[in-house]
Amino acid sequence: MPEGTAGRVQPRTVKGFRDILPHQLVARRRMIGTIRNAFERYGFVPLDTPAVEYTEALVGLGEEGSKNLFRMKTPEGEDVALRYDLTVPLARVVSQYPNLPRPLRRYQVAPVWRADKPDPGRFREFIQFDIDSVGSPSVLADAEILMAIDEAFRALGLRSFRIRYSSRKVLDSMLRWSGIPGAFGARTLRALDKLDKQGRKSVLLELGPGRVDASGDKIPGLGLPAESINKVGRFLDLPGGRGTLAALEALFAGVDGAKEGIDELREIDRYLTAAGIPPERASVDLSIARGLDYYTGPVFEAILTDLPEFGAVFGGGRYDGLVERFTGQKVPATGASIGVDRLLAALEKLGLVESGWSTARVLTTVMDSSHVIEYLAITREIREAGIPAELYMGEAAGLKKQFAYADKVGIPLVIIAGSNEFDAGTVSIKDLREGKQREGEAADREAWVKQRFGQRTVPRAEMIATIRALLENP
Amino acid sequence: MPEGTAGRVQPRTVKGFRDILPHQLVARRRMIGTIRNAFERYGFVPLDTPAVEYTEALVGLGEEGSKNLFRMKTPEGEDVALRYDLTVPLARVVSQYPNLPRPLRRYQVAPVWRADKPDPGRFREFIQFDIDSVGSPSVLADAEILMAIDEAFRALGLRSFRIRYSSRKVLDSMLRWSGIPGAFGARTLRALDKLDKQGRKSVLLELGPGRVDASGDKIPGLGLPAESINKVGRFLDLPGGRGTLAALEALFAGVDGAKEGIDELREIDRYLTAAGIPPERASVDLSIARGLDYYTGPVFEAILTDLPEFGAVFGGGRYDGLVERFTGQKVPATGASIGVDRLLAALEKLGLVESGWSTARVLTTVMDSSHVIEYLAITREIREAGIPAELYMGEAAGLKKQFAYADKVGIPLVIIAGSNEFDAGTVSIKDLREGKQREGEAADREAWVKQRFGQRTVPRAEMIATIRALLENP
Repeated sequence: MPEGTAGRVQPRTVKGFRDILPHQLVARRRMIGTIRNAFERYGFVPLDTPAVEYTEALVGLGEEGSKNLFRMKTPEGEDVALRYDLTVPLARVVSQYPNLPRPLRRYQVAPVWRADKPDPGRFREFIQFDIDSVGSPSVLADAEILMAIDEAFRALGLRSFRIRYSSRKVLDSMLRWSGIPGAFGARTLRALDKLDKQGRKSVLLELGPGRVDASGDKIPGLGLPAESINKVGRFLDLPGGRGTLAALEALFAGVDGAKEGIDELREIDRYLTAAGIPPERASVDLSIARGLDYYTGPVFEAILTDLPEFGAVFGGGRYDGLVERFTGQKVPATGASIGVDRLLAALEKLGLVESGWSTARVLTTVMDSSHVIEYLAITREIREAGIPAELYMGEAAGLKKQFAYADKVGIPLVIIAGSNEFDAGTVSIKDLREGKQREGEAADREAWVKQRFGQRTVPRAEMIATIRALLENP
Repeated sequence: MPEGTAGRVQPRTVKGFRDILPHQLVARRRMIGTIRNAFERYGFVPLDTPAVEYTEALVGLGEEGSKNLFRMKTPEGEDVALRYDLTVPLARVVSQYPNLPRPLRRYQVAPVWRADKPDPGRFREFIQFDIDSVGSPSVLADAEILMAIDEAFRALGLRSFRIRYSSRKVLDSMLRWSGIPGAFGARTLRALDKLDKQGRKSVLLELGPGRVDASGDKIPGLGLPAESINKVGRFLDLPGGRGTLAALEALFAGVDGAKEGIDELREIDRYLTAAGIPPERASVDLSIARGLDYYTGPVFEAILTDLPEFGAVFGGGRYDGLVERFTGQKVPATGASIGVDRLLAALEKLGLVESGWSTARVLTTVMDSSHVIEYLAITREIREAGIPAELYMGEAAGLKKQFAYADKVGIPLVIIAGSNEFDAGTVSIKDLREGKQREGEAADREAWVKQRFGQRTVPRAEMIATIRALLENP
C-alpha cells in the first residue's frame, strides 16, 4: 500500500449488506450441513453457478424479476447483473448442458442479491438454499422433496412443524369455478397467501372493496363480484385433514382440470404416508398458493407450529415451464427454497443451535515464554488426539488475560503448565464452564474465570484422557 | 413467466465466468472440507463478508487493487464494487468491530471478482481460500499457519510438497546491501519471484539490460548497475538447506535490519522442527519474495515437488500495516491464500480426488410402476441404514435405460425388484462396476451395464448387509 497516498477510510458495510461473524457463522454452517446431508442421502448433488449472469437471462421472469437487479458492465461493455435467485441460473444450466443426467437432483446454497429497499431483517444479499429436481414429470419427485425436508427438519431437532401442500391446478380450477377472470388470477392467489397472517375476513375484503390495515392505510381491493368472493370463501371453508380431498372433489365435480389436481394431491398423500410421515407433519392445505406466477402443479411450504410468526421457512412447487424460455421445450421441474436466515433465527429461538466463537475446545496458555516449544508439543498432542486446540498467541499477557480470552471465544478448557508442572511431569487443566455451575463456591463468575480456581493437576500421560472426560461430561 | 412476451434467451455464462457442475463440485467441496478441518483443529474460525464493498475501501491498495473492479451503484447512488480479494474485507472487519477477540484466527472460502482479461484457466470469478491470524506479533502465528497447511496437505494425501519461507526483512536488507534504490525495490522482488520459472540468468537480465523471451518479445530490464546485479546473484547463490542462515549471517554482517530478519527465520525453523516437520517439507528459501507490496515480515509459499509446473499452490506472509488504512493503528497480522483451482487441478492430476456425479451409492430401479410404494420402502430402508440412495424418477423407462442412468451419474449399485422378487420376498442387486473388472466374461462394457448380468438375488432381510459388503469390497 502506498504510504501516505490513501486517506483513512471509514470501515463500514454497504447499506443492506452485512458481515456474518464467526459466532454466527458456525451455527449457520452447522444448520446448512445438516440439511445438505439429508438431501445428499436422497441423491441430491451440489451445483455452483456464477454470481453474475447476463441481464437478459435474468429479466422477463414475471414482475419480480425485471427490477431490483444490481446491474453492471463487463469490460467488453456487456449488460450483466448479480443473480436475483437460484432458479433462473438452474434453468440456464439445464438448457446450456443438454447432456446433464436427468432427473437432475441438485441443491445450491449461495448468496443472491436484490437492490430492494433494506429493512431490519431484510438484506440486499442473502443466502438461498434451493433444492430442485429437473426432468421428472412424476409427482413422486415433488413428494421426495417433502420427504427430504421432513428428514432435514427432524435432523435439526425440530419437533413441531407442518408441511402443507396444495396444487396450482386445484387453485386454477377454483378460479375458474369462482368465475374470476384470468387477469385477476395471480392477484387473487397472492391475497390467499396472506390467510395465515391476515385471516379469512381480510383476505376476502382484499378480493372485494379493499380494507384498512392496522396502521390505518387503505389497501385497495380487486373489486371482484360478490358471487366470486362468496365462492372463494366456500373453498376456504372446506374441512382440513383427511376429509379435504373428498369434500373438494364433491365441490368441484365437473370443473375443468380439477380432477387432475386432486389426483396429484392424493398421490403425494399416498407417498408421504408410505414414507411414514404422519398427517400432523405433512398434509393438504388448500390455502397455500405460493405467489410466484410460474408454478404449474403441486405447491408446498412448511411452517413451524410453535413459531407461526416466522411464517414459511420452506416453500416451492412444480414449474414445468421455466426452462422453456431458454430452449423452447417444456422440461418438467419441481423445487423449493429454504429460508436460511428465518430458519436459523427460529432454531436460535428454540435453543436448537449453539453459537460460539471458537472451533477449539482447549487453549494451551503460555505461562512462561521460554517454554514455547513445550507448549507447542502439548497443543500438538491434543490436536493429534482429534481435539481442536489452540496455543495462546496474543500479546504477551498474564494467565488472567489468557483465561479471559478463552472465555470470550468460548473455549471451555485451558491448559496451564509452568516450571512446577514441567519439573513434575504434569499439566494443570481448568474448566472455565465450572464457574457458572458452582456459583455457590465462587460467587463472582468473572473472578472465577480469571483465577486459577478449580484447576486439576494430572500426570502428562493422563492429559488427553482427562480432557476427553471433561469435554464429554461437562 | 408471462407467456409469449419474452423471446427465447440463449443460455450462456458471462465471458470469464463458469459453472461448477456437480461432478466437479463434489471433489472441490471434499478438498475444501479437508483443508478447513485442518485449520479448525488449530482454532481457526470461519468469517463471511458481503460480495459488495464500498469502492473507496477497495481501491488504493497498491497497483493491483485500484483497477479491474466490477463497479456498480446502489439504489442510493453510492459507488460500490465486487470484492477483489478477501484481505481488504478482513482488514475492514477487524477495524469495524474493535471488540473481536484477538488474535482472530479466521478463514474465509469465498468467491472474488476481477474484471481482468480472461484467459484459459483464468477466470473473472474464482474461489479464494484465505487463512489469517490478526493480532499476534509473534512469528509463532506465522509458523502456525505453516504447520496447519502441512497438516492439510498431508490430509489431502499429498506426499511431495515443499513449504518455502523467507522474510521481507531479509529481502529489504538484500536490497540495501546491493545498493538498489527504494524505487526499484518492488520490481526487483517481482523479478526474483520468477526464479523458478525463468531461471537465474533470465532474472538477472531483467534486473539489468532486459531480455528476449521464448516468443521473441523484448522484456525491458530495470537497468540496475552491474555491481548491484552481481550482489543479487551472490545472494541467490547462497547454499540451501541447513547452512543457509549461517551463510546469510556472514554475508550480511552489519547490514541494517538483517539480523532481525534472520532471527525470525531461525525462530520459524525452530517451531517447525518442534512440530515434527522435516526440512524436506518446510525450509528457508531466500528467493521467495511474494510480489505484493504490503508484506512486512515472513513470506511463504508451497509448491508440489512432483508438479513444479503448477507453481505455488499456497502463499502469503506477514502484513502488519494493512489494517492501518482504516484505523490509523498498526495491527500485526499474517496470512495466506490457497490457490483452490490450481490445487484441485494438481490433486486431479495426482489421482488424489475422485470426481463423480452422484452422492447416492444405490439406485432403486422402477421395474413395474404399480409397485412404487414398495420401491419407496426399499429406498427408505437403505437410506435409513445411512447409505445415500435414490429411487429412479426419470421418464418411464426400461431397466436398460435406468442402468445407463446409474452408470452415467456414477451410482455403483442398482436394486431390481419385480413380481418374482416381491412374491419370493427377495431383491436383486447388480454391481455396475463389475462390468469393468470382468471384461473377459462380458466383452462389451456397455452391454454389461445395460443387461441384467451378474445380478445376485438375496432375501430382503439380507439386502442391507449385501449392499454394505459390496460397497466396502468393490
